[in-house]
Parts: sequence; structure tokens; C-alpha cells
Amino acid sequence: MSATGIETTSELELRYDANGLVPAIATDAKTGAALMLAYMNAAALERTLATGVAHFWSRSRGALWRKGETSGNELKVLDVRVDCDQDAIWLRVEVAGDGVACHTGAVSCFYRQIAPAGGGGNGYRLVRVDG
Amino acid sequence: MSATGIETTSELELRYDANGLVPAIATDAKTGAALMLAYMNAAALERTLATGVAHFWSRSRGALWRKGETSGNELKVLDVRVDCDQDAIWLRVEVAGDGVACHTGAVSCFYRQIAPAGGGGNGYRLVRVDG
Repeated sequence: MSATGIETTSELELRYDANGLVPAIATDAKTGAALMLAYMNAAALERTLATGVAHFWSRSRGALWRKGETSGNELKVLDVRVDCDQDAIWLRVEVAGDGVACHTGAVSCFYRQIAPAGGGGNGYRLVRVDG
Repeated sequence: MSATGIETTSELELRYDANGLVPAIATDAKTGAALMLAYMNAAALERTLATGVAHFWSRSRGALWRKGETSGNELKVLDVRVDCDQDAIWLRVEVAGDGVACHTGAVSCFYRQIAPAGGGGNGYRLVRVDG
């Protein structure tokens, strides 16, 4: 399909990468916070759509993975969207269980802000912000 | 650095992929909507942090790219965060110019929802939702 066709079609024609994956961002439906970024293959997307619970492909474990399967902190999916060129997914979710999305115990995996290191240099450091 | 170290360090130790890239999601600071997902190399991140305006690496053009450089719809960056394992970036932004982030004219690149195709089958179709 042409580039323009991909942008206007009502057909799902995901453009997976060489590993058969697309990045998927989950945001909190209430707060709008980005919670986690993970990867989906066709099976993970299919399970997500069929169950309403977020599934991903674990690149480190090489396995389909239902987020929260051990922690109980599943992501209930309210809305699944695809971007203009069909190579990324956006999930609007509610976090079940303890309400924390990150395996570290933080609400969001994005719990550190990149900030100037100070001291007159050009470097950066990470500042924990949570929330 | 160990996996645990990556999660707790205050040092920026981004884990770029084999192409020297990390995915970066931009969300609207007011609405929480995911606006676009693109890729950053070290130079794009450095320009973003130094200028407060989102820069990415265009994989199709093989070039550093200031989002909005032709459309005027730049992304003013309020907050740059890194995720637990330091292989993804989250930008909280305000869209300048016409207030639309997508080159198609949509507010967000994620203007289509994946919905059941109906008709009793297992297929899916894309439904334009904009907003």
C-alpha cells in the first residue's frame, strides 16, 4: 500500500519491523501519563484486542507476555489506536491491582526526568519525579 | 551497568538500539493524548534538551529533524523522561503553530482506533476518531 494509502485506509495494515514488532505506548486514561513502552507482535495485538487486557512480546524472554500476569497489575485497555503510518500503537488504559505499572513499583516506568547536571557543564542527570 | 543499576542510577545511560536509536513518545501536556512516536539518536536528544524543542532522527530521510521545521507545528518540550530500563523517552509537550502534530493535519498521529470489523468475523478495521 502507498504511503498515502496507509494514512487513510480503514484496513489494519501494521508495518512491523524486521523482528515482527511494533512499539506500543500505554498511557493512563485518567491522568494522561505515559506508563510504559513495550513491543507487540501480531499475536500480542490479537490477544490485547480479544481480551481487553494488554499483552506484549518480551524481547528479553522471547515470549508473549500478559502485563501483570505475576504482579496482578494488568492494564485494562479502553482504546487501541494506530498511528498515521501504521508502525506504532497507542493504548489508553486503566491499571488494575495496586495501580502501579512499573515492575520497580513506580506508578509509571517514566519516573526519572532528564535534567541539567549543573556545575556549569553540558551534562545531564536523572532526577526521580515519580507520579 | 547492571539491570538494577540502570533502574536506579541518576546517570543518563541510554540503551540505544543497533541503529543508535531509542523510541520517543510525545504526549500533549494538557490533554494527555499521545501525539506521535518517533526516534531519537544521541544528537536529536541533545538538541531537544538544549533547545526545548523536539528533535528526532528521521529513519526514512536519514537526517536529524526538528519537528515542525516546515509546518511551524513545533513541539515545545516541558519535560523529558526516561523509562526504567533506559530504552525509551517520554516528552510532555505543547504543540505550537496550528496545534496539530501530524503531517496529515490531524491533531494526533493516532487518529484511528482499531475496532471489530463486525459481520460476525474475527477481523478488525480502523475507525477515524481524530481528537
